[in-house]
Amino acid sequence: MNFAEKLRAAVPHGLGVCVGLDPLPDKLPAKCRASAEPIYDFNAAIIEATVDSAAAYKPNLAFYERFGVSGWRQLEKTIACIPKDKIVILDAKRGDIGSTAAAYASAMFESLGGDCCTVNPYLGSDALTPFLADPEHGAFVLAVTSNPGGADLQELKIEGRPLYLHVIELCRRLNQNHNVGLVAGATRPELWPMLLEAAGNLPLLIPGVGAQGGDPKVLRQLLQSYPAPCLVNSSRAIIFASSGDDFAEAAKRAARSLRDELVG
Amino acid sequence: MNFAEKLRAAVPHGLGVCVGLDPLPDKLPAKCRASAEPIYDFNAAIIEATVDSAAAYKPNLAFYERFGVSGWRQLEKTIACIPKDKIVILDAKRGDIGSTAAAYASAMFESLGGDCCTVNPYLGSDALTPFLADPEHGAFVLAVTSNPGGADLQELKIEGRPLYLHVIELCRRLNQNHNVGLVAGATRPELWPMLLEAAGNLPLLIPGVGAQGGDPKVLRQLLQSYPAPCLVNSSRAIIFASSGDDFAEAAKRAARSLRDELVG
Repeated sequence: MNFAEKLRAAVPHGLGVCVGLDPLPDKLPAKCRASAEPIYDFNAAIIEATVDSAAAYKPNLAFYERFGVSGWRQLEKTIACIPKDKIVILDAKRGDIGSTAAAYASAMFESLGGDCCTVNPYLGSDALTPFLADPEHGAFVLAVTSNPGGADLQELKIEGRPLYLHVIELCRRLNQNHNVGLVAGATRPELWPMLLEAAGNLPLLIPGVGAQGGDPKVLRQLLQSYPAPCLVNSSRAIIFASSGDDFAEAAKRAARSLRDELVG
Repeated sequence: MNFAEKLRAAVPHGLGVCVGLDPLPDKLPAKCRASAEPIYDFNAAIIEATVDSAAAYKPNLAFYERFGVSGWRQLEKTIACIPKDKIVILDAKRGDIGSTAAAYASAMFESLGGDCCTVNPYLGSDALTPFLADPEHGAFVLAVTSNPGGADLQELKIEGRPLYLHVIELCRRLNQNHNVGLVAGATRPELWPMLLEAAGNLPLLIPGVGAQGGDPKVLRQLLQSYPAPCLVNSSRAIIFASSGDDFAEAAKRAARSLRDELVG
């Protein structure tokens, strides 16, 4: 099954929940912290608890790399316990010159086994194409990010149009294998009408809901006639919904509640 | 010693050689390929051979990540055998929202022990500041990259000035700890007069010499009165100067030759 088909199958209602697996060590519940592999144990419990509501899981690699070899091993084990019908998004935001980007694509898809990853467009087309060569894998390209500094460059105007719209145009040109998506933050709903018009039928990965303040109801409204699958990510508001030993139950409720707000 | 002082000490002539440690598995010499840790064995021999000529070493993380846990372990071991007076640049090109960028900075500086790393500016100021909080470490921010697609976004004009100049202005504003540098590719010498004027006194990391075609003599001319330390990187032309078992001797000659072209 190619990436576009797998994505459509995982997001049958057009909008789906993506659970961000960003394990902060000092927020892990006591019963995980005692383990030899606390991140993996935590993630495995979160995945099991949220599997009915989630269309996708998104580990952010920063939270694994910081623990070196052990972190990387726990990332591999985490990915291995995600059910095969879910989309595995490796949130890596990689980007490098062509030959190096090919090595990153190999890391993401062959070594780690992700369905897709996030990539940064600053290096241009030859930095993106190695992630798009195989229709079985894809990439979500950063367009509008959810952080306050996102506007520093992304909203600079070139011939009257902000940089992120030029990024979106580049992505549409690179979409021959129907495996390019966009990252578009939920924290800037005022940008969305123009963004959606430019995006055509590219799938969206939408961070910024939950702890960062984006509103799922506003998203649902904005996306009601958008023609491509959209994944709404929530990390902290799901995985740290409780800091106690009931964290998995609390995550289950938080994921279900987000799903209901999006498609209920 | 803070980062700015260590960099000046490592580059006493203003221009220094950076050896890019980008080990492609099928280019490793036969005697390394037979090892359990071929990348580490290769890198250790390259570092020992080039230590008289090199001011800095720059492993590109893509070439380690693709081998998962084993690759990460060989990266750690590689970094551990770089002499302490050399600058360790982790070429990671990371960039993420503030809280995640802090985790990446922890990965690069605490876990891996790099002096500095490369970062991508697309997410703006709050994605860069976590890499700049500690004066003992620093970051080289991508301004002009050496690849053909670099121009796709970097040279788009905002109020008549290309995007990369806006990136440079952002970097100068963030340089309170004197630990911000720029990545500026040697493949576009025609951009350099404007770039150098904008860069003020930010250190430069210059890829694109060697296999990518940039000319060290042209660089030397351009940089003769530039006031900050500049590191000229060469990867393939040094580390793969010979594909035989004399690879370390050949690398030694190639690194010395580049040093002589820059400061001889």
